[in-house]
Amino acid sequence: MPIQTQIGLMSHEELTSEHESQSAKYTQLQAQKLALDLTRGKPSPEQLDLSAELLTLPGDGDFRDGSGTDCRNYGGLTGLPELRAIFGELLGIPVANLLAGNNASLEIMHDNVVFSLLHGTPDSARPWAQEEKIKFLCPAPGYDRHFAITESLGIEMIAVPMNHDGPDVVKIAELVASDPQIKGMWAVPVYANPTGAVYSEEIVRTLASMPTAAPDFRLYWDNAYAVHPLVGETAPSYDILSMAAEAGHPNRPLVFASTSKITFAGAGVSFFGSSAENLAWYQKFLGKKSIGPDKVNQLRHLRFFGNADGVRAHMEKHRAFLAPKFELVLRILEDRLGASKVASWTEPKGGYFISLDVVDGTAKRVIELAKNAGIALTAAGSAFPYSTDPDDRNIRLAPSFPSTAELEVAMDGVATCVLLAATESRLSEI
Amino acid sequence: MPIQTQIGLMSHEELTSEHESQSAKYTQLQAQKLALDLTRGKPSPEQLDLSAELLTLPGDGDFRDGSGTDCRNYGGLTGLPELRAIFGELLGIPVANLLAGNNASLEIMHDNVVFSLLHGTPDSARPWAQEEKIKFLCPAPGYDRHFAITESLGIEMIAVPMNHDGPDVVKIAELVASDPQIKGMWAVPVYANPTGAVYSEEIVRTLASMPTAAPDFRLYWDNAYAVHPLVGETAPSYDILSMAAEAGHPNRPLVFASTSKITFAGAGVSFFGSSAENLAWYQKFLGKKSIGPDKVNQLRHLRFFGNADGVRAHMEKHRAFLAPKFELVLRILEDRLGASKVASWTEPKGGYFISLDVVDGTAKRVIELAKNAGIALTAAGSAFPYSTDPDDRNIRLAPSFPSTAELEVAMDGVATCVLLAATESRLSEI
Repeated sequence: MPIQTQIGLMSHEELTSEHESQSAKYTQLQAQKLALDLTRGKPSPEQLDLSAELLTLPGDGDFRDGSGTDCRNYGGLTGLPELRAIFGELLGIPVANLLAGNNASLEIMHDNVVFSLLHGTPDSARPWAQEEKIKFLCPAPGYDRHFAITESLGIEMIAVPMNHDGPDVVKIAELVASDPQIKGMWAVPVYANPTGAVYSEEIVRTLASMPTAAPDFRLYWDNAYAVHPLVGETAPSYDILSMAAEAGHPNRPLVFASTSKITFAGAGVSFFGSSAENLAWYQKFLGKKSIGPDKVNQLRHLRFFGNADGVRAHMEKHRAFLAPKFELVLRILEDRLGASKVASWTEPKGGYFISLDVVDGTAKRVIELAKNAGIALTAAGSAFPYSTDPDDRNIRLAPSFPSTAELEVAMDGVATCVLLAATESRLSEI
Repeated sequence: MPIQTQIGLMSHEELTSEHESQSAKYTQLQAQKLALDLTRGKPSPEQLDLSAELLTLPGDGDFRDGSGTDCRNYGGLTGLPELRAIFGELLGIPVANLLAGNNASLEIMHDNVVFSLLHGTPDSARPWAQEEKIKFLCPAPGYDRHFAITESLGIEMIAVPMNHDGPDVVKIAELVASDPQIKGMWAVPVYANPTGAVYSEEIVRTLASMPTAAPDFRLYWDNAYAVHPLVGETAPSYDILSMAAEAGHPNRPLVFASTSKITFAGAGVSFFGSSAENLAWYQKFLGKKSIGPDKVNQLRHLRFFGNADGVRAHMEKHRAFLAPKFELVLRILEDRLGASKVASWTEPKGGYFISLDVVDGTAKRVIELAKNAGIALTAAGSAFPYSTDPDDRNIRLAPSFPSTAELEVAMDGVATCVLLAATESRLSEI
C-alpha cells in the first residue's frame, strides 16, 4: 500500500485524484453485485452448530429436573433451579435472586417497563403512566432495541455520552439527582452494544450508589455479553445487586441475560436477576400472563451445559469463530482507513459489534453507498435515541454472521464507501 | 344403593339421620388422610407421555423448515408457516390470519389487552388507559385466568349468565349496544371452561354481528378446546372471523388457541388468529418485546404432527385417557347425589372440566370440608369475576390429572362433603 495522506491535509488536486480513485473502486464494487449483510448481531450457522445437541435433547424419557418436577406440565414461574444455579454462578447472582424465562430477555425488559407504567414499581407513589412525564437515560451509541421499547411506550429518552469505560457518570449523576421524572437508564455493562466498552468498577459503583430524585429509579442492566469475550480473559461482571443494596438501593438494578448468543439465538433461555422485592412484584404480574416458562427448553439447556464450566468451555468454541472475524474487520479498517484519518473505531475485547465513526455528516451517505453496492449496514442513527445521530457519524458493524470470505469483501467495500463519502464531503467544503 | 329421599322433602328426623350418616362417612374420609388434587385442568403424566417424541425432536441436524428458514436463529415474528397451516386447518383460519407464538396463549391475550390500554386498538379514538373506565363482559361461570387479567389491569368486569348453548346474548346485545365503555368480552366458544357448553351457531353469529356502542369492541375468543372432544364427534368451531367480517366488524374477533392440552402443557405452541389489520397492529408492538418466537419448538411440533390429521389422531389418544375419567366422575355424582337433588352438574362433550352446582350458600363449605379431608378443589367463586359467586354454589371439577383410582376416592369424598354441607344447611334453616 502506498502511504496515504490524511484527507484533511490534501490539496484540491490530491483530493480530486483520491475521489476519482475511490469512485473507480466503488464502480468495481457495484459490478460485483454483492448481497451481504452486516446489520444484526446474529450468530453464524457454524456457531449455531456448536449447540446441535439441543436438537435431540433433553432426550428419550428425560423430563424431570433434579427436584423431581415434571418439566412437561404447567407451572414453575421461577424456572428450573439447577439452570438458574449455573447462570447465577456465571452472572454472580444468588439463585434465589434469579429467574429463568422463555427465549427473549428483551421481553422481560419490556414487561418490567410495562408493569411499571401500569402498576408502578414497589417504590413508586403511583403507576408511571399517571405521571406527567417519564424519562430514561440512554447511553449512546447504545442498543437500538432498548431505545425502541422506551420510544414505543412514550418515555422520553435523554442521550448521555458513552466513553471507553462506560457512560458519562458525572453527567448522569447530575441529571438523576435533580429530575424526579428520570425513572430509568438503559445499560449494557459488559462489551456494550455497539462500542464494546466495559463499565469500570468505579462507574458501576457510582450508578449503584448515586442519589436519585426519583425513589423508583431503575437500572435496566442488560448483561447480554457477560460470557462473550473475544480475548482470553473475560471482563468482570461487577456485583451490581450487592453494590446497590449496600448503598441502600436494593431495588435499583434489574439484571437481564440470556443464552441467545450462547446456544440458539431464537430458542434460548432468558434470565432476570433482582432483589427479592422486585422479583415478587414482577412475578405477581407475570403470573397473570403465563402459568410458567418452557421448562422443557430449560431442561434441554441444563442437560447440554451440565454446569457453569460447560458454558465457559462452550464460549471458547464461539470465540474461535468470532475472534478471527473481528481481527479481519479491524485489519481491513486499519489497512484502508488508518492513514487517511477519515474514521475511528472501537477495538472490542468481547461482544458482537464494532462501532465505526466516519467523517461527521457522512454516515448516512456511507450506508447509502454500501446499500447501492449490495452491502446492508444497520440504518444510520440506529444506535441513538429516536434513531438520531446528532453528528451523523456512527455506524454499527456486526461481523458475526457472514463467512470470513464474505466479511472480507463486505468490509473492503465499506472502507471504499467511507473514503468515497469522505472525499465527496471534503470536496464540497473547499 | 337404597332409594334416597330428596333432602328438601325430608322430615327433621330424616334430615338428622341423613346428617349423622354423612358425618360418619366424612369421619371415615378424614381417616384416610388423602392428598388429592382436583384444582387445575392439567394433563396427566400418561397424556404427556403421548408426546414423548418431542423430547428428542426435531432431531439430529434438522433445523430448517420447508421454506429453508434456519429455525435456530433470530427472527420470524409470525411463526412457521407450515405449523400455522396445520392449526389454520383445524381452527378454520387462513394461514395468513394466524400467528404462532411461544408456550402460552394466555400471554397473547394479556398482551392484546395491554397494547389496547397503552396504544389503543386500530379502531380506538385513544388508548384505553385514557378512557374514564373500561369494562369487559364475563360469561360466568368462566375461566378464572381470563378474569385475573382484566382484574389486574383495572378493567371493570360485568358477569353475564352462561347457558348450555353459550352466554345470554340477549342481555349481552343490550349491554354492548348502549354502553361504549364495554370494550371486550371473554369467550371460550367450544367446550367452555368450566361448563363444557358449546356456543350455538346462532349465538356465535349474534356476537359477531351485534351493534356495539364501542367501535373498538373486541371478542377475546379463546378456542382452547377446539380439538378436545370427549365423544366421537368434535363440536364445530364456527368461523367467527368471516362472520364478523361479513357483518362489517372485521377487527372484532381475536382468536386464541394453543397446544398446551395437546402436547406438553408447559412447552407447547400458542396461536393468534385475527384480521390482517389487527395482526399488523399486534406485531408492531410484539416486535418491540421479541425478535421472534421459539421456532425450534414450532419445528419440533411440525415434525411431531406432520399434518392436521396427525393432530386429530393424537387427540383420539387423549380422549381414550380422558373420557373414562369424566364418565367415572359423572357416574359417582349420579350415584351419590342424583336422587337427593342437592346438586346439578354439566355433562360436557369435550374440554377439561365439569361444573358442579351445590345447594346455594354451601360451595365454600363443601370446599372447606374437602380440604380438611385432603381433597383440594378449585377455590370457591373462582369461576366468577372478582372470585365472587353470588349464590355460593359453583364448584369446578378438573378430572384430568389424578389417576382413575385417585379420582374415584376423591369424587366419592366430594359427594360426601356436598351431602354433609347440604344437610347442615337444611338443618340450620328448619
